[in-house]
Amino acid sequence: MINKLVANIKKTGAPIVVGLDPMLNYVPEHVQKKAFAEYGETLEGAAEAIWQFNKEIVDKTYDLIPAVKPQIAMYEQFGIPGLQAFKKTVDYCKEKGLVVIGDIKRGDIGSTSAAYAVGHVGRVQVGSKEYVPFDEDFVTVNPYLGSDGVNPFIKVCQEEKKGMFILVKTSNPSSGEFQDRLIDGRPLYELVGEKVAEWGAQHMGDEYSYIGAVVGATYPEQGKILRKVMPKSFILVPGYGAQGGQGKDLVHFFNEDGLGAIVNSSRGIICAYKQEAYAGFGPENWGDASRAAVEAMIKDIRESLEQR
Amino acid sequence: MINKLVANIKKTGAPIVVGLDPMLNYVPEHVQKKAFAEYGETLEGAAEAIWQFNKEIVDKTYDLIPAVKPQIAMYEQFGIPGLQAFKKTVDYCKEKGLVVIGDIKRGDIGSTSAAYAVGHVGRVQVGSKEYVPFDEDFVTVNPYLGSDGVNPFIKVCQEEKKGMFILVKTSNPSSGEFQDRLIDGRPLYELVGEKVAEWGAQHMGDEYSYIGAVVGATYPEQGKILRKVMPKSFILVPGYGAQGGQGKDLVHFFNEDGLGAIVNSSRGIICAYKQEAYAGFGPENWGDASRAAVEAMIKDIRESLEQR
Repeated sequence: MINKLVANIKKTGAPIVVGLDPMLNYVPEHVQKKAFAEYGETLEGAAEAIWQFNKEIVDKTYDLIPAVKPQIAMYEQFGIPGLQAFKKTVDYCKEKGLVVIGDIKRGDIGSTSAAYAVGHVGRVQVGSKEYVPFDEDFVTVNPYLGSDGVNPFIKVCQEEKKGMFILVKTSNPSSGEFQDRLIDGRPLYELVGEKVAEWGAQHMGDEYSYIGAVVGATYPEQGKILRKVMPKSFILVPGYGAQGGQGKDLVHFFNEDGLGAIVNSSRGIICAYKQEAYAGFGPENWGDASRAAVEAMIKDIRESLEQR
Repeated sequence: MINKLVANIKKTGAPIVVGLDPMLNYVPEHVQKKAFAEYGETLEGAAEAIWQFNKEIVDKTYDLIPAVKPQIAMYEQFGIPGLQAFKKTVDYCKEKGLVVIGDIKRGDIGSTSAAYAVGHVGRVQVGSKEYVPFDEDFVTVNPYLGSDGVNPFIKVCQEEKKGMFILVKTSNPSSGEFQDRLIDGRPLYELVGEKVAEWGAQHMGDEYSYIGAVVGATYPEQGKILRKVMPKSFILVPGYGAQGGQGKDLVHFFNEDGLGAIVNSSRGIICAYKQEAYAGFGPENWGDASRAAVEAMIKDIRESLEQR
């Protein structure tokens, strides 16, 4: 899957990922109304609304982008119907040739971590049959529990040729509360980054490892250091756009080959139709607004990379 | 909910929680067969098997125990049908008067953490209606992202009078990889424990805070220190039994009032029928074996507390 991700990035020339993180109030009113008319103001209705919202965005952007990153929390909040919409979204994006990064931030130990891995990037045994429950290509994983939490994911990912991104330095303002604390003179996130490089060496694709890291766009200096600590790991970079990151902040997340990073934007793309710059499209053309926002994002990042 | 947890512990005299973490191979063969006969060897069949397995254990133990802790990973691995079994289990346990701790170990930032909180301990708005998607009483939360990840949970928990247990020092062998690293001469888990006390002060019940901590039974010395760092926080203690912890290791997790800790056992209870000590019950009476194992666990912990 890391090879497919690299191939998709080369094909599109766009090291970006669209975060499919729909809040219900992101969905244009006429789409909500239609879903509620069919299913009522129910969890099923909400799930239908976000699924229709996603589908249109995917239809209008899939040829420009290598990957999507659905945030499972946004679906889980609508219970079982929400998770059905998550699965539908994953399946649909895969049909469209996109790499799907399940932003699930799971992390537990031993057989419990293995169960998450099996559920999201593996297959589960039921009697004599096997099933692929959610079937993402990559997942995000929380490292707080150490190797016991990560190794079961590595094992399943090796079997399935799938991958993961481990939280190293997150994009939020308070990420430093624990992640920046100095240990033997170096911040915790650097130690986690070193472990990512170590774990990553166990599961290599052609050029890059199947095991990458999450480092927020809002911390470009840390990104520069972590790029060197984990040269073979892809960095998934959230925090572009709505959270404040810009193309020029991101150049050091990339290697000299122009690879090694994939920049996520969620609200900035999927809610483009609500922004002044794209308001002309109108809520009925939210997918076209998203396409225009994707094009602008690609241009910003490409130009920044060319100018470095 | 912390008041209900304390009341349930006082009523039963049992500061324990049964971990409903069913692997399919924990389920007696005749129960699996029956489920597969009805639903086939499908995810639905697996979900039915673990639900029937859980139900019998709950029926045979609910009068002895204050709380259960279903581990969502074990359900999530069976996809949507598995998560339906999770919800059924949560609802059934609440009907039986048990406090339900959803062991979900979620953690993200801002609106994403809020979405998890809403989905598991809150209510979600759909048009003019409100729904409670999973409706646990407590959840476990990963602190790696700092206050931005925890505060949205606190807000929802305050509104709903629900609570959470934050991972501080986990029970697994490699938990020290990051959690034990020294920061200004003190291990990371102590700093996290201090934050738990700080967060906990924002959301107090009558005697204890709604915000507790997870500290593994396998680390009794650390438990002793953390008990003092977070005097008003309940400690959820995994690692009893199958992971090696015993009653005598646990006394320092408790306060002088005999409260302040709740000890989890999963495999040791739900798989009791597979252990030599309870093999006499036979697989057809797995619930009775679990009841006997609960009684032995309560006795072990009570005696250890009396002897301290």
